[in-house]
Amino acid sequence: MLATFMYGPGDVRVEETAEPEILQPADVIVRITLAAICGSDLHAYHGGGIRPGVAAMGHEFLGVVEEVGAAVRTLKKGDLVVAPFVWADNTCDFCREGLQTSCRHGGVWGAGDVGGGQAEAVRVPQADGTLVKLPVSPDSGLLPDLLTLADVFCTGYHAAFKGRVDGQTTVTVIGDGAVGLSAVLSARLLGASRIILMGRHPARTALGTEFGATAVVAERGDEGIARVRDLTGGDGTHVVIEAVGYREAYDQAFGVVRKGGTVSRVGVPQYTDANVGMASMFFPNVTLTGGVAPARAYIERLLPKVLDGSVHPGRVFDRTVSLKDVPSGYQAMNDRTALKVLVRP
Amino acid sequence: MLATFMYGPGDVRVEETAEPEILQPADVIVRITLAAICGSDLHAYHGGGIRPGVAAMGHEFLGVVEEVGAAVRTLKKGDLVVAPFVWADNTCDFCREGLQTSCRHGGVWGAGDVGGGQAEAVRVPQADGTLVKLPVSPDSGLLPDLLTLADVFCTGYHAAFKGRVDGQTTVTVIGDGAVGLSAVLSARLLGASRIILMGRHPARTALGTEFGATAVVAERGDEGIARVRDLTGGDGTHVVIEAVGYREAYDQAFGVVRKGGTVSRVGVPQYTDANVGMASMFFPNVTLTGGVAPARAYIERLLPKVLDGSVHPGRVFDRTVSLKDVPSGYQAMNDRTALKVLVRP
Repeated sequence: MLATFMYGPGDVRVEETAEPEILQPADVIVRITLAAICGSDLHAYHGGGIRPGVAAMGHEFLGVVEEVGAAVRTLKKGDLVVAPFVWADNTCDFCREGLQTSCRHGGVWGAGDVGGGQAEAVRVPQADGTLVKLPVSPDSGLLPDLLTLADVFCTGYHAAFKGRVDGQTTVTVIGDGAVGLSAVLSARLLGASRIILMGRHPARTALGTEFGATAVVAERGDEGIARVRDLTGGDGTHVVIEAVGYREAYDQAFGVVRKGGTVSRVGVPQYTDANVGMASMFFPNVTLTGGVAPARAYIERLLPKVLDGSVHPGRVFDRTVSLKDVPSGYQAMNDRTALKVLVRP
Repeated sequence: MLATFMYGPGDVRVEETAEPEILQPADVIVRITLAAICGSDLHAYHGGGIRPGVAAMGHEFLGVVEEVGAAVRTLKKGDLVVAPFVWADNTCDFCREGLQTSCRHGGVWGAGDVGGGQAEAVRVPQADGTLVKLPVSPDSGLLPDLLTLADVFCTGYHAAFKGRVDGQTTVTVIGDGAVGLSAVLSARLLGASRIILMGRHPARTALGTEFGATAVVAERGDEGIARVRDLTGGDGTHVVIEAVGYREAYDQAFGVVRKGGTVSRVGVPQYTDANVGMASMFFPNVTLTGGVAPARAYIERLLPKVLDGSVHPGRVFDRTVSLKDVPSGYQAMNDRTALKVLVRP
C-alpha cells in the first residue's frame, strides 16, 4: 500500500510499504477514507520535528474497520470510525481524568511499529479505547467536518476549555491557521460573546468571522497589542488562546491578556524558555495553561454538534489531494496557498 | 515617629520621620500594634528590590484607627484593624473579581506618599476597602495569628486556592519558609490528604508537619525530584506550590508535578525567563498559575478559623523585636536564625 514518510526537512515522500497487520489482540486495521495534513506536520517539515530519522506521517484520519483483533469488544468490520491524534486505552487513570495524551498504555501515530494516517491503511492499537464510531455512511457529506474531531477542532476546543471560556469571558485568539479558527468556533460554542481574532490572511480571518470572531486585528507585535488594548478599554481579554507556537506569539499573548486572566497555548512551542517573570505574569496573576490536546476527551462532546450541522469545522479544509499528491499538499500549506489539506487515499 | 527605611542592599535603618496625616477623604491613620518582616523584604535586602532609591518598609501590620478621613464610612477611632499587603478600594471590577492586587485605585505600601508598616503609624488610603476590623481587643493573644492575614497566611492560601487543591489532590510544597508553611496549612484546610513538604531546616519542617505535611523531603534538585517521584509511584503530585522564588525551585516544581497538574507560584520570581517548553510543560499539559496574592480577597474567609483557634498560622513567628531593633530582625531572617520576625513598635 502507499504511505507517507518524512525523510527530513522539506522531504516528504509517498512510498509503497507493507500492509499493516494485527500485532496485538486489542488492535484493529482501519482502511482510511479521509486523512489530513496538520500544522504540526509543517513544524516537522521545517525541521522542528520531535523525532529524528524517517517518520511515518499523518495523525488525523477516519476510515472503515477492516480487521479486528481477538480482544476487541466494541468494534466490528465495516464500522466507520475516527481516531484521535494520540492513541490510548481510555481506561487508565489519566484517560479517566480526560488526559488521554498521557495514557499509561498509549502512544503517537508514526512511532515504533505504529504507522501514520496519511496512508491507505493503519494498525490502530488499543482500538476499543482509541476509536469512536461515526453514525454516518462512508459517503456522507459530513466526513470533512467529522475528520476535524481527530485533532484540529478538538485542539481548538481544548484551548478554549482549558482557558475556562464562558459567557462572562472575553477572548483573543492569536493565529488564523486551522487551529486558531477552530479555537474561535470553540470559544463561541462555550458562550464567549466577544472574540478578537489576530491574523493577517483575509480569507482566513473572513472564515474566522463566520466562525464567531467579533473583531479582527491584522497587526502583530507591539502594534497588534496596542490595537487589542484599544478594543478592550486598555485591559486586554480574560482569555488569550495562542495557536501559533512561536515565541513572538507567546509574547503577544502576554501583551493582550487581562490582569488575572489566562493564556491558553495549543500552538506547539518552537521554543523552550520564555518570560514568566514579575511584570508580565506574576504581579498580574496571569495563568499559563493548555498543551497537547487530549482530543479523545472531547470527541463525544463535540460529535452531536457536527452531526446536527450546528457547526461546520470542516470548512478549514480548502484543498483536497490524493495520497500520491500528499507532498504537494505539504508544499501548499508551507506556501500558505492552502489553509488545511484533505487527503483522499 | 520611628519608621523603617531601606537605603540599599543590606542597609536597613530605623529613623525619625514625620507623623502621617490624612491627605485624602478616604484615608485613616492607623497606630501600629504589631508588624512583621516578610521574606519578600529579604529579596530587597539582597538587592533584588523592585523599586530603586530609599524605600519605606513594611507591608504586614495591624493596629488601631486613630484618625478618620471625611469620606470614611465603615471605620471609627479605636477600631482594631488589619491591612492586606496591597491597599485597594475593594469596589472596582478587579476587586469584585477577587484581584485586589490589581485594584484600579490601589497601590503598595512604601511607595509615593504612602508609608510602610514597620513604623509607629501609617496613613491608609482607601481605608473602607483596605482595612478589615478585628473583633478582639488590642491585647488579645490571637494578634500574631491575625497578623498573618496581612500577607503570609493569605499568600499560602492563594497558592493552594489557585492550584485548586481539594480532597482529591496530592500536593507538594517547595520551600519551608513562612509562606511554604502557610501553604501547607492552607492545603490542609482545602482538604488535601497528602502534602509533601520539600525543605531542609528541621525546625521548620517540624512545624510544617504540625501544619499538615504528611511527608518531608530534605533533598533538593534532581535528588529531591527523585524522592518525590518515589513517594508518588513515579507520578509526582497534582499540585506543586513553589514558595521560594528562585529558578532552581521553578525547575524543581516542574520535576515533581504530575501530568495534567498545576504549578502554583507564590515565591516572588527572582528570574524572568524559564522553561515553558514541550517536554516539561506542553506535552504533559501542566498549568502554571499563582502570583502576588490578593490577600484582601481571603481575609474574611480565613478570619473565622483564626478566631475559633482551629488554625494557628502565627506559629511561623519565632522572634520578636522592637521597632528600633528591626535591622537585627532583617539580619536574623537573612542568616536564617529566625523564620519570621514580629515587630512590636
